[in-house]
Amino acid sequence: MADNMKFLQGNEACVEAALYAGLDFFAGYPITPSTEIAELLSIRLPQKGGKFLQMEDEIASMCAIIGASLTGSKVMTATSGPGFSLMQEALGYAVMTEIPCLIVNIQRGGPSTGNPTHVSQGDVNQARWGTHGEHSMIVMTASNNQDVFSVTVDAFNISETYRTPVVLLLDEVVGHTRERVVIPDIEEIPLVERLRTAVKGGVDYHPYLPREDGRLPMSDFGGVHRYNVTGLFHDMWGFPSNNPQVVHGLLRHLTDKIENYTDQIARYKEDQLEDAECVLISYGSSARSARHLVNSRRSRGERLGLLELQTLWPFPEHLVREKCRNAQYIVVVEMNMGQVLESVRAAVDDPSKVFLANRVDGELITPTDIRNILRLIWGKGV
Amino acid sequence: MADNMKFLQGNEACVEAALYAGLDFFAGYPITPSTEIAELLSIRLPQKGGKFLQMEDEIASMCAIIGASLTGSKVMTATSGPGFSLMQEALGYAVMTEIPCLIVNIQRGGPSTGNPTHVSQGDVNQARWGTHGEHSMIVMTASNNQDVFSVTVDAFNISETYRTPVVLLLDEVVGHTRERVVIPDIEEIPLVERLRTAVKGGVDYHPYLPREDGRLPMSDFGGVHRYNVTGLFHDMWGFPSNNPQVVHGLLRHLTDKIENYTDQIARYKEDQLEDAECVLISYGSSARSARHLVNSRRSRGERLGLLELQTLWPFPEHLVREKCRNAQYIVVVEMNMGQVLESVRAAVDDPSKVFLANRVDGELITPTDIRNILRLIWGKGV
Amino acid sequence: MADNMKFLQGNEACVEAALYAGLDFFAGYPITPSTEIAELLSIRLPQKGGKFLQMEDEIASMCAIIGASLTGSKVMTATSGPGFSLMQEALGYAVMTEIPCLIVNIQRGGPSTGNPTHVSQGDVNQARWGTHGEHSMIVMTASNNQDVFSVTVDAFNISETYRTPVVLLLDEVVGHTRERVVIPDIEEIPLVERLRTAVKGGVDYHPYLPREDGRLPMSDFGGVHRYNVTGLFHDMWGFPSNNPQVVHGLLRHLTDKIENYTDQIARYKEDQLEDAECVLISYGSSARSARHLVNSRRSRGERLGLLELQTLWPFPEHLVREKCRNAQYIVVVEMNMGQVLESVRAAVDDPSKVFLANRVDGELITPTDIRNILRLIWGKGV
Amino acid sequence: MADNMKFLQGNEACVEAALYAGLDFFAGYPITPSTEIAELLSIRLPQKGGKFLQMEDEIASMCAIIGASLTGSKVMTATSGPGFSLMQEALGYAVMTEIPCLIVNIQRGGPSTGNPTHVSQGDVNQARWGTHGEHSMIVMTASNNQDVFSVTVDAFNISETYRTPVVLLLDEVVGHTRERVVIPDIEEIPLVERLRTAVKGGVDYHPYLPREDGRLPMSDFGGVHRYNVTGLFHDMWGFPSNNPQVVHGLLRHLTDKIENYTDQIARYKEDQLEDAECVLISYGSSARSARHLVNSRRSRGERLGLLELQTLWPFPEHLVREKCRNAQYIVVVEMNMGQVLESVRAAVDDPSKVFLANRVDGELITPTDIRNILRLIWGKGV
Repeated sequence: MADNMKFLQGNEACVEAALYAGLDFFAGYPITPSTEIAELLSIRLPQKGGKFLQMEDEIASMCAIIGASLTGSKVMTATSGPGFSLMQEALGYAVMTEIPCLIVNIQRGGPSTGNPTHVSQGDVNQARWGTHGEHSMIVMTASNNQDVFSVTVDAFNISETYRTPVVLLLDEVVGHTRERVVIPDIEEIPLVERLRTAVKGGVDYHPYLPREDGRLPMSDFGGVHRYNVTGLFHDMWGFPSNNPQVVHGLLRHLTDKIENYTDQIARYKEDQLEDAECVLISYGSSARSARHLVNSRRSRGERLGLLELQTLWPFPEHLVREKCRNAQYIVVVEMNMGQVLESVRAAVDDPSKVFLANRVDGELITPTDIRNILRLIWGKGV
Repeated sequence: MADNMKFLQGNEACVEAALYAGLDFFAGYPITPSTEIAELLSIRLPQKGGKFLQMEDEIASMCAIIGASLTGSKVMTATSGPGFSLMQEALGYAVMTEIPCLIVNIQRGGPSTGNPTHVSQGDVNQARWGTHGEHSMIVMTASNNQDVFSVTVDAFNISETYRTPVVLLLDEVVGHTRERVVIPDIEEIPLVERLRTAVKGGVDYHPYLPREDGRLPMSDFGGVHRYNVTGLFHDMWGFPSNNPQVVHGLLRHLTDKIENYTDQIARYKEDQLEDAECVLISYGSSARSARHLVNSRRSRGERLGLLELQTLWPFPEHLVREKCRNAQYIVVVEMNMGQVLESVRAAVDDPSKVFLANRVDGELITPTDIRNILRLIWGKGV
Repeated sequence: MADNMKFLQGNEACVEAALYAGLDFFAGYPITPSTEIAELLSIRLPQKGGKFLQMEDEIASMCAIIGASLTGSKVMTATSGPGFSLMQEALGYAVMTEIPCLIVNIQRGGPSTGNPTHVSQGDVNQARWGTHGEHSMIVMTASNNQDVFSVTVDAFNISETYRTPVVLLLDEVVGHTRERVVIPDIEEIPLVERLRTAVKGGVDYHPYLPREDGRLPMSDFGGVHRYNVTGLFHDMWGFPSNNPQVVHGLLRHLTDKIENYTDQIARYKEDQLEDAECVLISYGSSARSARHLVNSRRSRGERLGLLELQTLWPFPEHLVREKCRNAQYIVVVEMNMGQVLESVRAAVDDPSKVFLANRVDGELITPTDIRNILRLIWGKGV
Repeated sequence: MADNMKFLQGNEACVEAALYAGLDFFAGYPITPSTEIAELLSIRLPQKGGKFLQMEDEIASMCAIIGASLTGSKVMTATSGPGFSLMQEALGYAVMTEIPCLIVNIQRGGPSTGNPTHVSQGDVNQARWGTHGEHSMIVMTASNNQDVFSVTVDAFNISETYRTPVVLLLDEVVGHTRERVVIPDIEEIPLVERLRTAVKGGVDYHPYLPREDGRLPMSDFGGVHRYNVTGLFHDMWGFPSNNPQVVHGLLRHLTDKIENYTDQIARYKEDQLEDAECVLISYGSSARSARHLVNSRRSRGERLGLLELQTLWPFPEHLVREKCRNAQYIVVVEMNMGQVLESVRAAVDDPSKVFLANRVDGELITPTDIRNILRLIWGKGV
């Protein structure tokens, strides 16, 4: 094997990508099935001069990476469902204060401690809505380890570009499957670095005054500028305000800077969609089975196609509507009770064409499972 | 004023109702705009022999009421957005272990610490999806203090009936508005008490084996039966299992016991819907303005009607579809970016008829705000 | 129990009905799961002066009843799949010569010897199309033993009215389920007796010249008239002809005398169809489970309804279109790969609304099976 | 005429093709209009070392070829309607036991003995559904004698490939029309020979365990392996089972091995379909008239086209939908009451565009007949 070709778990591919992207601070608390990320980083990150902190819990971990990011570091934490629930309050703080950071959630079965060692995709809506208050959120995912690498790098880039937390929502099967990953050459995937203010020290720096293009240059906290950072609604200096115009303006800024860029943030892959009569929409490990089914049934003349979403939120509704325009059946393949399903229904022209092929017992949904559900949907019985 | 007629804040009406319903344990941590609930209960609850605990934070509060409920108490906590986020992990434990409890969230502006003293309805989706893993949740609300009283009692009843946490999702305007409340006579509103097992001590008690009617009799923890309670997926004895059939069966039980009873759980009020060409759908303090507008415009011959939802989750889709069947316009009035709007769109026959009338600057949406938005929707300009 | 109240198997109810209807000749060869019919008739039929013949096979049995009917007897045979296949050639002769007779097929699993002791509904299309050449066929069924009684009497009546074989297509579960049957008083169900010619002996009798109302009076073979009976296309005297007009005329007569009376021949039951959003269409033992599901889900507010077909062929397409006009989902419940499904799809306005809930493993489809398939059809996943 | 150019009846072309394909066993009973096949084979088959058996009836004929095929022979029988009805029970046995064999049915007028010397296409649905129990069936046809040759060879190949009986459904006009046929050189049409197991004697041979590609290698009965062959549902060793999973698995195998390969099994010819506004769909001798009409009207600028089906079952619904996508009128030309018509209606996007041009009086439908019907369909009157 060439030097740049490795045989990695998804969790390891995520680590490699984070290092590739320039990660220099990680804080976390181990939890199955994400633990390999922390474990590997505890070795690798110090080797390249970064900081690895094992915290006392997930609340502390989330707060630590927010603080480190504010000082100029590229940061990340990793957890699974229960830990992700604990992070929700601080995650809202990162949204409000517009702190770039990456939160990896390797999904396992829930609710509660649930089914720690088995796969699930039950946190899709939580990733969008888990913290309180109206807000937007960017949530990405991947189905194989090569994609885990590139999507992780993308996630860091997007987090910096839009100055907002990004949730990387993988699942147990992706996290623990070991397969070939080719590490790209340095600069092969462009990196987006922190947009720092050009305002000199001693001059008025407005930390929360967006530029014309909507972006908001940062200044490393503890550096040349002193400014206020708060989870309260705040004005362009960062000072609290309950002035209705300020509140309205900031809330719209926080949502528009994401929702208006839905098409740019949308990462996806498509497979044989051109003439597909039946479009499968899937993501994460479910998409592995969906892709397998598409290819095996195509060889028998069935016009199946796959739209694999790598960006789950903001939900790419234009993309989904467009790709499904000529489909007679749209089948969302996921391992929950239909969380992406609802967004697809809202996006397409005729919601009655949208069906759910799912599995929620901790086992990976297989191509045969999907095929059997398709038979029922097509009215062909068991 | 008669003895049973009081002039109360919504928060106080909630307290009166909890006491009426038989609350005997409260644990909480103060946060604006919910603090009056804890404050009043710290006086009233001990007077009637109940326990009031001020905890160190919201996580501890949530855990305390779960434990107390398990021992046989009727329990509640109260908080606002940031505290509600902190409760999400333990809330999932209550879902999984099927513990009756009431969580009151008096919504304020978010995300993060946001706009503590101002109104918002931004936590609707969080209340449904805030904890990790696929699950269902019952979420109720009210728009005036008399309704706060009856819905609070209802919420306790429903929590016991379905053996699940219930979120009472009020908002700052309702919580702090003071108006007349008539306290019903004892037994005027029937109470649902804990369903306890008839199985004697020393006999096999299956704590997680539902009866034929789907209900699950409890045994006060620490009493005659010893049994296991875990947030992991578990069998009928309460012991952990990752057997796919057990996992699937329990997940379906946890969702079906709620979703299948959507019609029974649905509380709502309607006003002049019979011949309404334009149906307003609203809840909480927004519904106060919507009702005012319906009545003022009816007197001018405009066929407006109001459907006020008191159960937000499980979303009463049959009800909404039915009530909107003949409407030309359906306008959701709420103080967020359209959280109930999406559920209404998914429920009705023609989503293109559904519009949003909202306000998100911390101020209450007024009848005039709604009226102005209606003009635009009707194509009559500003 | 009153004298007229009995506790019978479906097969026994069929026997009681046949005797009630005036059966006086039976020929058959035993085969599971129909054997009880022959067994009971071997005792009961001679007691009332009728003839019971155990033949060497099913071909002989079918030929024997055709001959006996022609001499004026009310006749029947009973078999299951393999025997029914053997009868197909002679069945076509009865169609062509317009001989009233009842063929009971208690369906078991097929093809071939298949699954003799288990239930199936796999012979629906065979009952319509099993014999060669363009033709029509009347096929009836029932789901409970009281209905087996009345439908059996009906089947004899229809066979005489339309002068054609009638297939009574029951299934193993109906045939072997024992339940209460009330035997009606004599004349409570009117009987249709053989329409015999009024033409005297020695006068020209045209055995194949239909009356103005389309009916064709018979003359007991071996009686006062001598005439020709042939399986070849024939003229009004019964003599062979390949004159195109004669061939066309007879083929149209044989099909029109049935297809034009589809509405009169259509027997069905309906349950809560008035406002049903989801219409189940079923028959035979499958309809027992469908009815159970409709009633149990109605109690939870789901608008399910049942159309139970008792006439399968000629397919009652107007009836089905009418009853399904307002349905959002039409689900055919049957134990095959969708044989009635195809007819329903051809009948309704929008075939894409028609789905199949089936089971083909020899076990009775249960209400839970149907419910689980409905979840998938409704897009709610497993 | 070159040596390989012959002037043959369709029945004779079928014989030549069977010999070309390697037929070595024929059993049959003579019946008009198929008799020439048996007659010619009684001479030709022994000459090349094959076996010809005149049996006592069609049941025996069908059973004989099943047994011979099982011992390793390439087999066939030939009959017409009444004989085909008698074969239905044993045909189901061949389906269940997966025995390759070819059944030729030269259609004449029915039902019953009907119109023996005249043409009909009345057995299309019987060929699909004539035997009892849910099953699939492959049915092929041709319209001229050159195609009879190639389709007959194809039919043998398909029978071996899918290990299932194939029905070759010709009609009296094709069978008796004499026209030029070029016999291809040996190996010009590739032959599919019996797939035999590579498992040695004395080793475990699983006669009913499909390979990964779904095919099922055979072992000549009476050879090195002893195994069970039964018409009952059976496991991989061929032993009877009523285990629901085994029953479901085998039934799905028997149908899927055919239905899933519908596109590969579909033989058809098309003529000027590219821009056809009116698509004629036909087969057998009817297609001769349809083709004639298409060509004669094209010369006058009418945009007619022909889709001639050579595979009737499994019905090539994707093909039909595709070819009819742009048609304003779809007219099925056949000599029955609309048996292929129903399948076309079920296949196309808009069934209201599908019409029937037929004749059922024993005479061949002519181009003028079709043209007259087209005028009516187009609203141009008689």
